[in-house]
Amino acid sequence: MLVKLPVEEFSQVLGSNSPAPGGGSVAALSGSLGASLVSMVCKLSIGKADYEAFQVELVEALNQAHILSDSLLVRVDLDTEAFYSVMAAFKMAKQTGDEKKARSEAIQTGFKQAVQSPLGIARECLEVLRLTKNLLGKSNSSALSDLGVASLQAYAGLEGAIMNVKINIPSIRDENFTTDTSREISALLEEGDKVRQFIYQYVAEKLARE
Amino acid sequence: MLVKLPVEEFSQVLGSNSPAPGGGSVAALSGSLGASLVSMVCKLSIGKADYEAFQVELVEALNQAHILSDSLLVRVDLDTEAFYSVMAAFKMAKQTGDEKKARSEAIQTGFKQAVQSPLGIARECLEVLRLTKNLLGKSNSSALSDLGVASLQAYAGLEGAIMNVKINIPSIRDENFTTDTSREISALLEEGDKVRQFIYQYVAEKLARE
Repeated sequence: MLVKLPVEEFSQVLGSNSPAPGGGSVAALSGSLGASLVSMVCKLSIGKADYEAFQVELVEALNQAHILSDSLLVRVDLDTEAFYSVMAAFKMAKQTGDEKKARSEAIQTGFKQAVQSPLGIARECLEVLRLTKNLLGKSNSSALSDLGVASLQAYAGLEGAIMNVKINIPSIRDENFTTDTSREISALLEEGDKVRQFIYQYVAEKLARE
Repeated sequence: MLVKLPVEEFSQVLGSNSPAPGGGSVAALSGSLGASLVSMVCKLSIGKADYEAFQVELVEALNQAHILSDSLLVRVDLDTEAFYSVMAAFKMAKQTGDEKKARSEAIQTGFKQAVQSPLGIARECLEVLRLTKNLLGKSNSSALSDLGVASLQAYAGLEGAIMNVKINIPSIRDENFTTDTSREISALLEEGDKVRQFIYQYVAEKLARE
């Protein structure tokens, strides 16, 4: 499992001449790091008098951030597995008509997985962005730059995952699937961009005023 | 050392109730992951007939990417150390006049480090962005989304590091230092934003055309 590797080794494996792990796994990791920063900010705010009014929300956000961080870590490995299942399908026998059909179906299934995997990453990165936005003004102000970094990592994860969806869509023949997916990624990007900009403005103004 | 921790454990430590590691270390890791993706793309292009004209550039980019990825990994730990040296300075004795003076100087030195550390991260993230831009059209087109993700991670690292510079600047009394730093971060952000947008446009157009 990739997430069992030491950070420096993960970085080396990423930089190797194998196409996997690649951008999809990095997008998932980026989102997970964003969610972990959200956890940290919640913990630095829970039990502090200044944020007493937001304790219930903070505890709920902490739980959500934990779930998202763990799930996105799982997706680091899942995305690399999805890539290998496409590769495995391409290597299937293609002598007889039956073999050709089975291979072609396996390739289509593989590509759908290679689209659904980063789509799942993108959805969860958007969740991290929403969580981050909700904590503005309700959490420890000395950790404001950490919330800012959380949003940057989550947004990079969202946009990066969507690039990985887009690069695989042209290989899929099921038009209903590609139409639905294209519609969903537009919506994810649109909301993600709005939330990111909102957070950025907020953080930039506060940091300039200090 | 943080980079010796398994990825999943790093994520847990990040999400703990300690303010360090925080956004600065994450920014460095983000840049390092971007650089590693650049390495991968170079390796997937070197020796391929389609990119024969760019072999020398590709090998040079690979070397640069390696250096940047390693250096940014070192900065993951350095940034957390810089934070702890500020904390240690605040805990120094402050009874006598001499003690007060020594403490105040140590705090100022600590804050300068806490600005110089993310500034170094930001500079190297910009280098990663420049490297990524130079590979467009000269590297394996099946890894185009990986170059896209590399630029997103490097840009998130750049912008995140700069937030960490900004949150510490108001604590520094040396006006020459703060003026120079403010000027440099504006320049870094301006160039970074241009390079990021250029890459994004290029990747988006190619992915839409497939």
